[in-house]
Amino acid sequence: MNNTTFNFTLNAQNNNARSGTIQLSRGEINTPIFMPVGTYGAVKSLDVQDLKELGAQIILGNTFHLNLRPGLDVISRFKGLHNFNNWQAPILTDSGGFQVFSLGKLRKITENGVEFRSPINGDKHTITPEKSIDIQHQLGSDIIMAFDECTPYPSDYSTVEQSMHLSMRWAKRCYDYHHQNTNDYGTRRGVLFPIVQGGMHLDLRKNSIDMLHEIEQSRSNTTFPGIAIGGLSVGEPMEKMYQVLNELMPIMPTEKPRYLMGVGQPLDILHAISCGVDMFDCVLPSRNARNGHLFTWKGVIKLRNARYKTDENPIDSDCSCLCCRNYSRAYLHHLDKINESLGDRLCTIHNLHFYLDLVKQARNAIIEQNFEQFHHQNKHLHTPIS
Amino acid sequence: MNNTTFNFTLNAQNNNARSGTIQLSRGEINTPIFMPVGTYGAVKSLDVQDLKELGAQIILGNTFHLNLRPGLDVISRFKGLHNFNNWQAPILTDSGGFQVFSLGKLRKITENGVEFRSPINGDKHTITPEKSIDIQHQLGSDIIMAFDECTPYPSDYSTVEQSMHLSMRWAKRCYDYHHQNTNDYGTRRGVLFPIVQGGMHLDLRKNSIDMLHEIEQSRSNTTFPGIAIGGLSVGEPMEKMYQVLNELMPIMPTEKPRYLMGVGQPLDILHAISCGVDMFDCVLPSRNARNGHLFTWKGVIKLRNARYKTDENPIDSDCSCLCCRNYSRAYLHHLDKINESLGDRLCTIHNLHFYLDLVKQARNAIIEQNFEQFHHQNKHLHTPIS
Repeated sequence: MNNTTFNFTLNAQNNNARSGTIQLSRGEINTPIFMPVGTYGAVKSLDVQDLKELGAQIILGNTFHLNLRPGLDVISRFKGLHNFNNWQAPILTDSGGFQVFSLGKLRKITENGVEFRSPINGDKHTITPEKSIDIQHQLGSDIIMAFDECTPYPSDYSTVEQSMHLSMRWAKRCYDYHHQNTNDYGTRRGVLFPIVQGGMHLDLRKNSIDMLHEIEQSRSNTTFPGIAIGGLSVGEPMEKMYQVLNELMPIMPTEKPRYLMGVGQPLDILHAISCGVDMFDCVLPSRNARNGHLFTWKGVIKLRNARYKTDENPIDSDCSCLCCRNYSRAYLHHLDKINESLGDRLCTIHNLHFYLDLVKQARNAIIEQNFEQFHHQNKHLHTPIS
Repeated sequence: MNNTTFNFTLNAQNNNARSGTIQLSRGEINTPIFMPVGTYGAVKSLDVQDLKELGAQIILGNTFHLNLRPGLDVISRFKGLHNFNNWQAPILTDSGGFQVFSLGKLRKITENGVEFRSPINGDKHTITPEKSIDIQHQLGSDIIMAFDECTPYPSDYSTVEQSMHLSMRWAKRCYDYHHQNTNDYGTRRGVLFPIVQGGMHLDLRKNSIDMLHEIEQSRSNTTFPGIAIGGLSVGEPMEKMYQVLNELMPIMPTEKPRYLMGVGQPLDILHAISCGVDMFDCVLPSRNARNGHLFTWKGVIKLRNARYKTDENPIDSDCSCLCCRNYSRAYLHHLDKINESLGDRLCTIHNLHFYLDLVKQARNAIIEQNFEQFHHQNKHLHTPIS
């Protein structure tokens, strides 16, 4: 069985901002979309019912983490991640590259791939483009990411160039392996997204896009159905990232959904949408939630501030999430103070609700042809509430 | 406003086991009942929607903990705990006595009350019977517990005797303070339960019951609407506790609900129900859940056992809780391994569902006059599943 379904329809465009629909065999995704991160197969502290109530359409799984724990022996018993974590809508998996490169001294890069030692037990592992795709096949991922090198920032031009070239050679190997193999249980339905690299240099980014196009043309199979932008939000100043997006997006293929990996703050997302990005993921809303940093349409609430100790208001009186329907800032402040995991869950629900609402409102604004105004009206989203 | 409502109706009796209904202004409770423990105003990891879905009818709050965090200044802003934690059904609060006595060297007992140092910041506090009742009034508790000394086990006869006498003098002070005062916002609706002490000695237990009865008779106000059994499950062998219950219950007032404090294992609860106990609380189901100790009608599952690593079955295929409807033992085993709080929540939901089901099935068995058979059929509840 290999019933891969992938279809992307652009429904509306407002200047460079786009709204569309991705059809996958496990469900439809309305873009622009935000994808909550479920590193080890669970979006931290949330169950699948929570995610459904939030209106999540697709979640992310981390190949590197899932390969270590629970490991493919367990996932295979369930014929993939969906049956293991009971999330029956689409899952996008990253390639594991970003995590492997973050290991620093514990890893060694060669043309073949990356050797590294498990941060859990020190065991030696090798991950190659083929291995990454194979793991993602076994996970039963709906959107599979190519294995690439995430170029560090800052790096000199020739380092970025070599790194990008390596990623493009690996992208070709990913493409071939993906199209020539299925998983052990013959249920693969995933599609492969390659990743544009090239750091902060537009010419290298352009070369990267061209080289990915060459891969498609040199093969008789299908084209890449979507395309990701890697190597941003890696420590560069915000202005730099915005500049790269401003220059890069006009030369990206228009018929494919564009996924900006690991970004970011609400205003980064709105800026990227204004440039034409369609898909986002980031741990920020859930991680910040656990640190008492809460997003609202009126600005940021730092829950640990003593002023919230007796505050009877919900986080956001206009918000309809489980947290805001039931609880006050004072109660959440208390839960944070006693390290009660219920607080993590409620705050995560609120922040993810905000992020999913953010992209939904952006979608509507694009459809109604007033995204620019919407964007302009929300420049205060990072400012603490007064 | 002082609209105290309390009514206890016995609906069925099967040998010594009883089933009844407690009416309180915030809701009805069907007995025998188990009360989940919400130490700091939250049943660990659960929100109020979870508790409603579990069918919880009453939860417990800890006076000692809530008085320290968030403190009465915060609770008063909300005019009580119900508005703070948004649990609108009945709440029973303990007196704080048990926690204060657990402080060991940090506390000093006098006739007046107990002096102790806060385990959080070392501040000096004094808690007296009057102070305990006042805090419980401010919390807006529906069932208020008398402040007593929990006699340690083992203790010699005269120590137990003196301790019990002190508790009875304190019970009288609690009674008087309770009936002469309300809270700052005039919304008190709670009723006061006294606590029978006397350790493992039936004669002292009988004296204690008589002395409580004398308090009622010497006062022109209402009688105690319910009565608690303290000083059990404090380290004595199970047989000892069962023996005390066997001997004590026949001499307890029959017209009042009987609350066995801090008990216990499922079989302890079934034994106590067979003796005529009506109300229970214990941290065991929630604490055990967080340690991977799960209860089912077929026996105990120790989730950390490697055999569950790939087990595709739910904890209990006959269970209808959120956890069993959605997840396998293997997934829960994985969540435990990665220390993911979602696992704590799912396991807590399962164990509390089991406990609430246990008392519900007991109720039904009593009504159907086959409690003894039901009890006998479930002697294996503590045995690990094979």
